[in-house]
Amino acid sequence: MKAWEIISDGGIDALHLAERPEPEPGHGEVKIRVRANTINYRDLSTILDPVSRNIPYPQIANSDCAGEIVSIGPGVTGFSAGDRVMGQLVQTWIDGSIAARDMANSLGGTLDGVLAEYVVLPATGIVRMPSHMSFEQAATLPCAALTAWNCLIAQCRILPGQDVLFLGTGGVSIFGLQIARMAGARAIVTSSDDAKLERARALGADDTVNYRKVPDWENAVLDLTGGRGVDASIEVGGAATLPKTIAATRTGGSIALIGVLTKGQIDPTAIMRKSIHLHGVYCGSRRMFEEMVAAFEQARIEPEIYQVLDFGDARQAYRTMLEASHIGKIVIRV
Amino acid sequence: MKAWEIISDGGIDALHLAERPEPEPGHGEVKIRVRANTINYRDLSTILDPVSRNIPYPQIANSDCAGEIVSIGPGVTGFSAGDRVMGQLVQTWIDGSIAARDMANSLGGTLDGVLAEYVVLPATGIVRMPSHMSFEQAATLPCAALTAWNCLIAQCRILPGQDVLFLGTGGVSIFGLQIARMAGARAIVTSSDDAKLERARALGADDTVNYRKVPDWENAVLDLTGGRGVDASIEVGGAATLPKTIAATRTGGSIALIGVLTKGQIDPTAIMRKSIHLHGVYCGSRRMFEEMVAAFEQARIEPEIYQVLDFGDARQAYRTMLEASHIGKIVIRV
Amino acid sequence: MKAWEIISDGGIDALHLAERPEPEPGHGEVKIRVRANTINYRDLSTILDPVSRNIPYPQIANSDCAGEIVSIGPGVTGFSAGDRVMGQLVQTWIDGSIAARDMANSLGGTLDGVLAEYVVLPATGIVRMPSHMSFEQAATLPCAALTAWNCLIAQCRILPGQDVLFLGTGGVSIFGLQIARMAGARAIVTSSDDAKLERARALGADDTVNYRKVPDWENAVLDLTGGRGVDASIEVGGAATLPKTIAATRTGGSIALIGVLTKGQIDPTAIMRKSIHLHGVYCGSRRMFEEMVAAFEQARIEPEIYQVLDFGDARQAYRTMLEASHIGKIVIRV
Amino acid sequence: MKAWEIISDGGIDALHLAERPEPEPGHGEVKIRVRANTINYRDLSTILDPVSRNIPYPQIANSDCAGEIVSIGPGVTGFSAGDRVMGQLVQTWIDGSIAARDMANSLGGTLDGVLAEYVVLPATGIVRMPSHMSFEQAATLPCAALTAWNCLIAQCRILPGQDVLFLGTGGVSIFGLQIARMAGARAIVTSSDDAKLERARALGADDTVNYRKVPDWENAVLDLTGGRGVDASIEVGGAATLPKTIAATRTGGSIALIGVLTKGQIDPTAIMRKSIHLHGVYCGSRRMFEEMVAAFEQARIEPEIYQVLDFGDARQAYRTMLEASHIGKIVIRV
Repeated sequence: MKAWEIISDGGIDALHLAERPEPEPGHGEVKIRVRANTINYRDLSTILDPVSRNIPYPQIANSDCAGEIVSIGPGVTGFSAGDRVMGQLVQTWIDGSIAARDMANSLGGTLDGVLAEYVVLPATGIVRMPSHMSFEQAATLPCAALTAWNCLIAQCRILPGQDVLFLGTGGVSIFGLQIARMAGARAIVTSSDDAKLERARALGADDTVNYRKVPDWENAVLDLTGGRGVDASIEVGGAATLPKTIAATRTGGSIALIGVLTKGQIDPTAIMRKSIHLHGVYCGSRRMFEEMVAAFEQARIEPEIYQVLDFGDARQAYRTMLEASHIGKIVIRV
Repeated sequence: MKAWEIISDGGIDALHLAERPEPEPGHGEVKIRVRANTINYRDLSTILDPVSRNIPYPQIANSDCAGEIVSIGPGVTGFSAGDRVMGQLVQTWIDGSIAARDMANSLGGTLDGVLAEYVVLPATGIVRMPSHMSFEQAATLPCAALTAWNCLIAQCRILPGQDVLFLGTGGVSIFGLQIARMAGARAIVTSSDDAKLERARALGADDTVNYRKVPDWENAVLDLTGGRGVDASIEVGGAATLPKTIAATRTGGSIALIGVLTKGQIDPTAIMRKSIHLHGVYCGSRRMFEEMVAAFEQARIEPEIYQVLDFGDARQAYRTMLEASHIGKIVIRV
Repeated sequence: MKAWEIISDGGIDALHLAERPEPEPGHGEVKIRVRANTINYRDLSTILDPVSRNIPYPQIANSDCAGEIVSIGPGVTGFSAGDRVMGQLVQTWIDGSIAARDMANSLGGTLDGVLAEYVVLPATGIVRMPSHMSFEQAATLPCAALTAWNCLIAQCRILPGQDVLFLGTGGVSIFGLQIARMAGARAIVTSSDDAKLERARALGADDTVNYRKVPDWENAVLDLTGGRGVDASIEVGGAATLPKTIAATRTGGSIALIGVLTKGQIDPTAIMRKSIHLHGVYCGSRRMFEEMVAAFEQARIEPEIYQVLDFGDARQAYRTMLEASHIGKIVIRV
Repeated sequence: MKAWEIISDGGIDALHLAERPEPEPGHGEVKIRVRANTINYRDLSTILDPVSRNIPYPQIANSDCAGEIVSIGPGVTGFSAGDRVMGQLVQTWIDGSIAARDMANSLGGTLDGVLAEYVVLPATGIVRMPSHMSFEQAATLPCAALTAWNCLIAQCRILPGQDVLFLGTGGVSIFGLQIARMAGARAIVTSSDDAKLERARALGADDTVNYRKVPDWENAVLDLTGGRGVDASIEVGGAATLPKTIAATRTGGSIALIGVLTKGQIDPTAIMRKSIHLHGVYCGSRRMFEEMVAAFEQARIEPEIYQVLDFGDARQAYRTMLEASHIGKIVIRV
């Protein structure tokens, strides 16, 4: 079979389209014909800097996939050939809170990725696709959507009527606003680009702030909440924006920290004075993934897709990710 | 001022329209011009059987009201004359879980009720009305809607995509289905009356079961959830229906118990085998009430009202409640 | 190897000491030299009535074991030969709340039991023994102790200073009182036998009530808590005692329901009036088991053992269980 | 009556011993004969810098008191003359999570303090003393002990057997280690002073690290937890120590942020990578206070007292606080 491999620290250009033997499922495992991948910032980072992430060469790239089960190993229950499934990023995280040992079990991280024609995964590491989605759509869910779900539903426990802030229009933020709206909350989105804010409104954002035009955007957010501050937010910008996000949060509110954040100066006093809860979030559990699939089916959520490329154009897909001018997920059809 | 009083155990016919001095607000209190009341089963029970509830005569009837602040006592902050507010049923329950001492502080229970032209309440015992609602609409919220909110949001912690079961079409169930839909969940409603089920569907119920036509309705509910069972329910029928509700609930699911329930035979083994959580629920806290108001504003929820009667027709309102053939709340305009 | 098998519905006398081939570990599995079993009421019930529990013949009996890893299969990390471990009753329940699919994965239930010289289990289905315990002691933990931990720590979330009620002096109750004391709570224990109550006090019970001498023991418990009622309890008696346990519980308190309970009359109104939380509990997750092991090590908990019998005397062990006059766990040395 | 007042920004020397009229209790209020105060860093800061805290002159100093009720106003239930009580720092925070409006209701902050012969407080703003404590001991609880309780029990939800880290030996840390031990957890304490570490061990600390002798103390803490990291900590040092505390925390662990912290550089990535929960904590609710009193009674906790001074020596007490070489609370007998 064909698979895109990371074989050096040469970045996107050095991605290698390799031939590998088709894997076969062992006890408790399933073999999946991969039909689509999507790209996350995490995948791009791994390609750009495999060394600091201890990626062994050659390693199959990418974390998110959807496909069809073609065969099952002995002892598998609950799945059969023909089932449309997604791989779960943290393979061993079944339920509850993440454990240290789970950190070593991420697809496209310490484990081989999924940008290949076939993958074999334990039946405990896959989840059924939402029935109304195509493979291209379902492939957007395992990392970005599940991270947003964990942030809002499991950590911040947003309630109907609450105000939720999204910084920027990256993949997690866009899924976040769809989830917030589905859960009866109000979504406020920031961006430096009016066109992206317009698209966010089309996807359900109740209010938007252009942080280039309004540099003290935290005050704009306070104004939008009657001076009170938001109940919850997904913070992707890191130390650069965290003080402003804290300022825009209500007493007792929550902030979910995700993504690849930058170091910076913060004032812990503000966190204490407002009794704020800060939650570091790394993807989500299988239980959360299954609950999210049920929710997406119920609300018939349509993931926002920017572009669908062919398997042979994988390098182009990562270059588009690197340019970072898109809104919505970049899909590779396998 | 005029007020409807319970002066004996003579039932609805003995309700007495009395003259009382207008109360004036003391320290920390507000005086409210009551504009509407609604009736709950709890209020009817109190009128029908004041003795076993230790109601001292004469006691002003009824628990739910909305009105307008006409004056404030010294030391009140956060409210001023002209504010449109609702009384909070459990006056001292601010936040967190209910305490034993809160039980002695219910409007229309151990405390005087609100079926009067004016009431004086502590500023800690009132909540601002949803801005889009009339007094008639807002008066439906303090008991029935808040109970449903506590059941689903605080106790069962329903998530988007979950399946929620409502037994019957009483006030709590109807608000419950509106809340469940607002929170992205799926609502399944039972009734013995197809007309009521049709109305429930018009209000957002995803599925309905006529339990007269389908006596083993628990199996119908299991079928509607792919054999899995519902994630949560509001149980109003008591011992008569609880075993069926348990049978219709998923492993690890939750049941909120409310209302005036009947004694009966239950099998605790089923609760243990399925690791079910049963929560007794008695109205809700001020924090929950404020959160619910925000949610109802955001979703522009319209309470279901059956009938609006004049202040002089209070007895007729309770008689209609007693007949129990209505769907939606019965309102008394003050 | 030798193993005690259930081969018919003939009860204890029909338990069969069989020869079986030694199992060998596959991918992700470990092979354990079993060194001790303990007996739970659940194990006795399975032997007495395998038919209604759909036990396939022949099935190895019993659920609780401790032993030593003698070899590991490919792909196992975190364990190696020589490790002293316990089997986990619900093999697939890793963390979070129990799922329907976990119910079909119980040792000594739908899966083969552990009353054998060797067992092979997935490395995800075992937990390291507390370092200070013998095999006989550690074998007491997987069912009874973990159930008590789940009840008190995960469900009722007892706090230091709270009052906790234990009905009777069965295995779960005795571990429960040790856990309650370790967590800074106060333990109140009931029994019909003064000698058992004396032993409970020696193990840390703060107060005891003989329910034979004090038939309205719920009032005695109320008195012991200044009229307030207990914060939490483990209810093992079922419908016969549940109304009294509810009466002895504070407003907003919790009751964990376990064991093999009897049907009976209960009044759901009391659950509602006091806003009580009732939690059905079925053993616990691996995460809970590991947390409990850490706690037992920290407090150097010594399990209460009634009797240690030899492997050949397994039938006698179950007969002693059936007589039910003991206090502490019955151990079979393998 | 006599009261120590802040009348300027002149610091400790400008504290003024004033004559004030004895306050009398209004509706719902109690009058307390103050018998002891203790000092917190917060009180010292307020005296040193009343301007930036918007303290209106003259304002009675200090937040923590214990005393005896001498009379009660109309409408007070649950308390009577002679009751030994403590003032609650955040007067309006009854239960649940803190609200923005509660922030304006702190004794010794926006409200008058308690360093006076008499104070009048609402009956909802006081809590009964642990029965085994003297006034001097009970006066240590309202701020420091309750903050530690909120951090460990309400926010970090420590379990028996968990490892808890305390930075330094200030008032909150010392109560924290007593609470951790009472809850069955293990306490690890850091300090730059071996004598203080010795005292911490005498009070129950399981392990200690001298961070002056061991500058990479985070690694020492990791070693003490088998490389895993602590489950919870109380972080008082702020941005200077937070990165080290994060490094010493396990995946999924919690950090409670309190006190008067310094700005500094932090790396949010570490919070995300380890899925850490950071909780800003500001004192605690009345419910927490009552629960803590029950726990302290059950465990017969003895607060650590450094020195007891007379009412006339209040300035000396604050000077000792400023020197910061003590361990244990500084008490002023009134």
